[in-house]
Amino acid sequence: MRHSSWISCCSDLRNMSKAPDSILRRLKVRRQKQRTILAMRWRCAKGGKEFKELDTFYRAIRPYLCVAQLFGIMPLSNVLSRDPQDVKFRLRSVGMCFTGLFLLLGGIKTVMQANILFRTGLNAKNMSELLLVLGESSSKILVFVFFVAVNLVFLIVGIVNWLNFTGFARSWSKLILPWSSLDILMQFAPYAPSKHSLRSKLRLIGCVVGSLAVVDHLLYYASGYYSYHMHIFHCHTNHSRLSFGSYLEKEFSETFELLPYNMFSVCYGFWLNAAFTFLWNFMDIFIVLTSIGLAQRFRQFADRVLALQGRQVPDTLWYDIRRDHIRLCELASLVDESMSNIVLMSCANNVYVICNQALAIFTKLRHPINYVYFWYSLLFLLARTSLVFMSASKIHDASLLPLRTLYLVPSTHWTEEVQRFVSQLTSEFVGLSGYRLFYLTRKSLFGMMATLVTYELMLLQMDAKSHKAGLPDLCA
Amino acid sequence: MRHSSWISCCSDLRNMSKAPDSILRRLKVRRQKQRTILAMRWRCAKGGKEFKELDTFYRAIRPYLCVAQLFGIMPLSNVLSRDPQDVKFRLRSVGMCFTGLFLLLGGIKTVMQANILFRTGLNAKNMSELLLVLGESSSKILVFVFFVAVNLVFLIVGIVNWLNFTGFARSWSKLILPWSSLDILMQFAPYAPSKHSLRSKLRLIGCVVGSLAVVDHLLYYASGYYSYHMHIFHCHTNHSRLSFGSYLEKEFSETFELLPYNMFSVCYGFWLNAAFTFLWNFMDIFIVLTSIGLAQRFRQFADRVLALQGRQVPDTLWYDIRRDHIRLCELASLVDESMSNIVLMSCANNVYVICNQALAIFTKLRHPINYVYFWYSLLFLLARTSLVFMSASKIHDASLLPLRTLYLVPSTHWTEEVQRFVSQLTSEFVGLSGYRLFYLTRKSLFGMMATLVTYELMLLQMDAKSHKAGLPDLCA
Amino acid sequence: MRHSSWISCCSDLRNMSKAPDSILRRLKVRRQKQRTILAMRWRCAKGGKEFKELDTFYRAIRPYLCVAQLFGIMPLSNVLSRDPQDVKFRLRSVGMCFTGLFLLLGGIKTVMQANILFRTGLNAKNMSELLLVLGESSSKILVFVFFVAVNLVFLIVGIVNWLNFTGFARSWSKLILPWSSLDILMQFAPYAPSKHSLRSKLRLIGCVVGSLAVVDHLLYYASGYYSYHMHIFHCHTNHSRLSFGSYLEKEFSETFELLPYNMFSVCYGFWLNAAFTFLWNFMDIFIVLTSIGLAQRFRQFADRVLALQGRQVPDTLWYDIRRDHIRLCELASLVDESMSNIVLMSCANNVYVICNQALAIFTKLRHPINYVYFWYSLLFLLARTSLVFMSASKIHDASLLPLRTLYLVPSTHWTEEVQRFVSQLTSEFVGLSGYRLFYLTRKSLFGMMATLVTYELMLLQMDAKSHKAGLPDLCA
Amino acid sequence: MRHSSWISCCSDLRNMSKAPDSILRRLKVRRQKQRTILAMRWRCAKGGKEFKELDTFYRAIRPYLCVAQLFGIMPLSNVLSRDPQDVKFRLRSVGMCFTGLFLLLGGIKTVMQANILFRTGLNAKNMSELLLVLGESSSKILVFVFFVAVNLVFLIVGIVNWLNFTGFARSWSKLILPWSSLDILMQFAPYAPSKHSLRSKLRLIGCVVGSLAVVDHLLYYASGYYSYHMHIFHCHTNHSRLSFGSYLEKEFSETFELLPYNMFSVCYGFWLNAAFTFLWNFMDIFIVLTSIGLAQRFRQFADRVLALQGRQVPDTLWYDIRRDHIRLCELASLVDESMSNIVLMSCANNVYVICNQALAIFTKLRHPINYVYFWYSLLFLLARTSLVFMSASKIHDASLLPLRTLYLVPSTHWTEEVQRFVSQLTSEFVGLSGYRLFYLTRKSLFGMMATLVTYELMLLQMDAKSHKAGLPDLCA
Repeated sequence: MRHSSWISCCSDLRNMSKAPDSILRRLKVRRQKQRTILAMRWRCAKGGKEFKELDTFYRAIRPYLCVAQLFGIMPLSNVLSRDPQDVKFRLRSVGMCFTGLFLLLGGIKTVMQANILFRTGLNAKNMSELLLVLGESSSKILVFVFFVAVNLVFLIVGIVNWLNFTGFARSWSKLILPWSSLDILMQFAPYAPSKHSLRSKLRLIGCVVGSLAVVDHLLYYASGYYSYHMHIFHCHTNHSRLSFGSYLEKEFSETFELLPYNMFSVCYGFWLNAAFTFLWNFMDIFIVLTSIGLAQRFRQFADRVLALQGRQVPDTLWYDIRRDHIRLCELASLVDESMSNIVLMSCANNVYVICNQALAIFTKLRHPINYVYFWYSLLFLLARTSLVFMSASKIHDASLLPLRTLYLVPSTHWTEEVQRFVSQLTSEFVGLSGYRLFYLTRKSLFGMMATLVTYELMLLQMDAKSHKAGLPDLCA
Repeated sequence: MRHSSWISCCSDLRNMSKAPDSILRRLKVRRQKQRTILAMRWRCAKGGKEFKELDTFYRAIRPYLCVAQLFGIMPLSNVLSRDPQDVKFRLRSVGMCFTGLFLLLGGIKTVMQANILFRTGLNAKNMSELLLVLGESSSKILVFVFFVAVNLVFLIVGIVNWLNFTGFARSWSKLILPWSSLDILMQFAPYAPSKHSLRSKLRLIGCVVGSLAVVDHLLYYASGYYSYHMHIFHCHTNHSRLSFGSYLEKEFSETFELLPYNMFSVCYGFWLNAAFTFLWNFMDIFIVLTSIGLAQRFRQFADRVLALQGRQVPDTLWYDIRRDHIRLCELASLVDESMSNIVLMSCANNVYVICNQALAIFTKLRHPINYVYFWYSLLFLLARTSLVFMSASKIHDASLLPLRTLYLVPSTHWTEEVQRFVSQLTSEFVGLSGYRLFYLTRKSLFGMMATLVTYELMLLQMDAKSHKAGLPDLCA
Repeated sequence: MRHSSWISCCSDLRNMSKAPDSILRRLKVRRQKQRTILAMRWRCAKGGKEFKELDTFYRAIRPYLCVAQLFGIMPLSNVLSRDPQDVKFRLRSVGMCFTGLFLLLGGIKTVMQANILFRTGLNAKNMSELLLVLGESSSKILVFVFFVAVNLVFLIVGIVNWLNFTGFARSWSKLILPWSSLDILMQFAPYAPSKHSLRSKLRLIGCVVGSLAVVDHLLYYASGYYSYHMHIFHCHTNHSRLSFGSYLEKEFSETFELLPYNMFSVCYGFWLNAAFTFLWNFMDIFIVLTSIGLAQRFRQFADRVLALQGRQVPDTLWYDIRRDHIRLCELASLVDESMSNIVLMSCANNVYVICNQALAIFTKLRHPINYVYFWYSLLFLLARTSLVFMSASKIHDASLLPLRTLYLVPSTHWTEEVQRFVSQLTSEFVGLSGYRLFYLTRKSLFGMMATLVTYELMLLQMDAKSHKAGLPDLCA
Repeated sequence: MRHSSWISCCSDLRNMSKAPDSILRRLKVRRQKQRTILAMRWRCAKGGKEFKELDTFYRAIRPYLCVAQLFGIMPLSNVLSRDPQDVKFRLRSVGMCFTGLFLLLGGIKTVMQANILFRTGLNAKNMSELLLVLGESSSKILVFVFFVAVNLVFLIVGIVNWLNFTGFARSWSKLILPWSSLDILMQFAPYAPSKHSLRSKLRLIGCVVGSLAVVDHLLYYASGYYSYHMHIFHCHTNHSRLSFGSYLEKEFSETFELLPYNMFSVCYGFWLNAAFTFLWNFMDIFIVLTSIGLAQRFRQFADRVLALQGRQVPDTLWYDIRRDHIRLCELASLVDESMSNIVLMSCANNVYVICNQALAIFTKLRHPINYVYFWYSLLFLLARTSLVFMSASKIHDASLLPLRTLYLVPSTHWTEEVQRFVSQLTSEFVGLSGYRLFYLTRKSLFGMMATLVTYELMLLQMDAKSHKAGLPDLCA
């Protein structure tokens, strides 16, 4: 029996989780388990639809998890299964092998990049010689140091994110089982299905952002190759090095220090680059998708409360509704807790890269394609960051929707239960945060943007003074 | 019958609005429609005053809408009608033609300006030559780049605002019908009329700010012409170019690239310039007028609650009052939602222009008229921005006024209804915002001003170091 | 009869105030008047102590008002009277003559100073020559420009403050009458007198800050004279100009452009200088004293509530207490409203001067006495500003004190009245603000200080780069 | 009898504290005393465990207090006693002698350091010569000025901290007696003991941070000696000065101005240096340990409330629980009040040092050991500061834990007591603060870090422009 195994899995979960001593977690886990089991039993008794066809969050997010496996992100076993209880983190699995492989290869790349950085000399003794070579314009050095540092930070952040996602994968089954049971609960009356299924929404968002990311990645190569091509064409007599292959040899130079130049190693270079880029985008997209999933449930919940408007509602029903709300809030806080490090890393990284791009905003670029790439990637990054904040802020907005219905409950039906419900709705913050150091709200987004603009204005002042010289000679 | 068409329009509205699935909107629209119809029926049955003579917000704002039509802003058909239900957005109307014309001509101007910018070379290869021509003072280049960029941004913002207002015009009838019905409701007992009519208030504010704006615009030409005159007089032997006409030829140079120089094209140049300036001022004035209109209703509402002080109020009356409050809040949130993009654009633009002016504050100007124009326009801008924030913050202040009366309700009359009213008053924020990224409050104004002052102080530091040289030669 | 005139004055007040239409003010004024009359009547019926000997705020602040008259600040007639109802603002009074005189003389001084500023050439054409004279160090020019600007701003702020205080004097009787009646009310049971009388507290604070201010003023002359003396001694052969008189001639140079040099005009110079300095200090001290006066009443109120702890309190008593609390809150908000412009001006001015001093913190000074004066005045200013914020924040702290007693009320005595009291205590902000743009709280103080420190650190960075040169030659 | 003396001590406390007139303090002290006595009596009557073996905060913190005595911090007599009532502040005690000695010796060192600073000439006349000697790079001067100033500030802060801790020692017995009685209360049912004893937690944290601090201190000497060694080796022919002793002679040069060079004076130098470093670390560790102690009690309290979930709880029990909560909150606010100056000093100092380190982050260092020391000490400092904020924020988090249990109380058991409990939990802020100017929360930490990063980015901009020159000649 499939369903009995589901229940036994929940029981396992119950036994398993006796260890944690923190009251908060114990409290949560206990109640979540009870609810999971009860809900499941009730559904099974009723028969009804096969839950694999229901519009659950797991079903909607599964394709993304499958793709992530290819890049060693979130190593879960049985990720192809349509039953969330099959999907677990196992230390000895294909996914973990992939992850280990990526960590190893990414680690090697990082070490080599760090080696270059220290060899060329940030903070090193030959800084002065370097400066003589580069010319005296200090802003150019700044840009150079930043460029190398950005590359290194990008790689290190990638490694940390792989580890973060592996950690998240470990707590995945603890998260997806309560979520799925809530999802199932909210597929049936009294909850009305939403007009657009969660699955279609997630697919739309994922595809749009994904395609934009692919374009961004392709533009990166196009911009790099064009610059390389023009440089060779104008400054070298040896035009045999004009080919795309030669460009790749330079682009993946650290790869070719270890591997011979052939088809395989070129693919390897592409693949590793793509993996880091994918990871960076996946991080943001994953937060967006999770936020949409949560917000959808809160909106459905509000819909249910709205349906009660103008009707005489007994206290027991209010209590049931309130309990469902507590469940939703607990799910939200569980998600917040599990994803805090991913959110923190994502925001920190995005802000860092935006700051860097902002720094380079007045750098003179040589070719139109460089401009296109620079502005496309800056705007894409800003849009993605805003999307993360706006999606996450919608969870909180949706959680406040029932309030308006409750205000209209007439005095004759205004009981203690309703009052408690109102105070519950207003007292707690529901949403995602980065270890509660900051919350993903519209206000935070505004604060971040305001700071960025101020910073940019400052840079403008300073840069204007050191940009007297035109573009340096192409072949210098 | 006029009134029946009003009711049928409301029914249309009811049928029309089945599409939107967002619960929040559905909830709002439904209740608003019911109320609109009920209120109208009740009034019609009672006979009474013709509502076109009532002191409604529509009647007060209508003259401004009419003037706006001349510049293609907020294209509404039948804007001359005194009945709000006649005024609708129609895609095929004279207003839309005007808007289209302005968008086209404004677009051409913007493209030509952008062309100039890229030709003279921000971010372009001949930047270095430009710098040699302009001399080595970096701050001068800064000012130049800023001047060109400001012009372009001003034009682009103008285009965006035309589109924003067109979008707002589309939702105008959804906004003005509930507002008018609320306005009508609050013209009769138990609501007392306010001492100064809304119409006279709006007329006063509009005239004052409008005249100041006209003076600002005239000073712009005066300052420009005087500079041009002195330049020609001192540096050129050909004194035939001293006339105002020659100045205009230079001022509207991008116009004369396409059109021959004649009376018509000069008028066209003036008219287009005026349209952009009008739009910029209209945006701020419109927010101010709307805020005053909303705040007035909240103050009337508070007056009604105050009148109950010391009297024994039955629960049913409290419930009626509370429902009226919910209506007001819903109107406020509807206005907030519809105007968010206008508010956001207005604030962003004002802050941007203030920052720019602040940057130029230590630039040495040549003629007294330049000083007069510079300081007049800076102070006018600061005053206008503060007015926007202060007016909007008065909505929230007014919404809290009933609280003081409620605190004095004696214990014997303190019922659940009163308590709910108190908690309703304290829990929600009522006011305007820019997509809820920020709210138009006194606190925001203070924060903005503090940031500007800090920025200005920084500039002071930096500028002091590059202002060693005096005024460059007039004829250089 | 004295007391009947008091009551009639209140009736006058009642009739007088029918004009203002703002609901907020009407509401306040009406209730305040009722209370004033009731309280007075009750006291008079009881006979009891002569209220002139009571520890009222008016009695405590009166000496300061008397001193202020000498400098034309807060022109009130009959300020020597011990009865607050005698003290009114009259347009034709000795106080107003003084104020007018100061405004006139201060105005002349300001105009002459502005004249100097424009003649020497901030923003003027001979800026470049000035810079050649002063040498090329840009930071020196910065300091010079700042020095002149500071002087001018100091004078303009002084003029504005005189006008502000005159405006405040006009609303003084509207403020002091309700306050005095509350003061009288709180002199008797059930309110316990506080250990230290308000009068002694205010005297202590006033004397301490006053003496420090006098020292500051004397140091200003000492520092100036010493610098002058050393300059003449080392650089001029004409040692006849070493006297203090010659120094004064230079110090008050703008006075001696209009007046001949004699004993009278020297005194006039001293007196005008002293008046501006006094005004600046008085502004801060006045806010501090008012805050202490308000906080004292709130603390007494909390004491009364504390005395009820553990006793069975009937609802009617809670209602009386709550009404007294509303009165206190209304007094506080009346004070806040009347003093908003003074608070705003005081904070803006203090922050401006601190920023300026901070700018000069790394300027090399020549003589030890210059150091002593610079650091003494900076620290005094910081301490005074902190004192303003800390005193004002104590009003809010004191207003929250009853909360702790209320939490301990046992369930059996927990009625709706107590609950309303609790919610009233927690919902409103009580304290002083600058037009509600910012509140005088500890948090604001911290924010201000943090911003100043950040600004200072920035200056440090920049200044370090332009301070290569040592002290310029003494006689240059 | 031991216990009777405990009780009599509490009575003494009662009589002793009649003086303070502040209502807040009186209120607190009274209730705390009552509780102390009651709790003690009840325990004594029950007999039971000897309280010296209980897991009290006093027992856990005692080892740290003992160590602190060695450095003259927190001079308490009988600190070796295991009974908290024996430990009191006495003006004539061995501890005070130590403190006096440290203050004297530290004062001498500070004066001498200040002497050096003024002699070498910050703000002094020979600044220009100094600059000539050092070369023209302004950033080097900056670093030099900062280095000397940092040293002096470090010493002055040390002196202030000794005085702060002495002040804290004076109020220690007023703090530890109520705390201990609460601790004892929470050792028995209905409170469950926590899994890890407070003692082991504090020992772990203390040891880890302590060891890291020792490593930091050793690295300081290692880095200093290595630099000295290389300098002598390369630049001097007199290689007899290569020894560690010669390094110490330079390091403790101000010591050897007063004392002859021998074993004793070297030890003295080490000891004084260690004392200042210990004090700096102790300050942070002490805040962390106190926070953990408080948070533990709040968590235990939440555990008790959780245990009541699903059971029928009478109102009297809720009242008892609520009273315990008030006690805990009062203890927390007592701790906050006593430690405010320590918290303020710790944060101000940490931020100052971090800013300084950030300033030096792009300084080129000569030897690898210098890099190791620099980065180790910066990261250690950042980690310690974050630990302070995170630990303190856990108090507030723990205080909110019971809320989730209370939301699940069914309607039938929802009484006024429970409602008051909820409103009590949500209304007050529980935690540590720096004179309530700022609170130790995650949000503050985030704000601080964000400001630091912004500052760092600014520095980066500026530094890049003055770092053109390489490392100066080693022997210059």
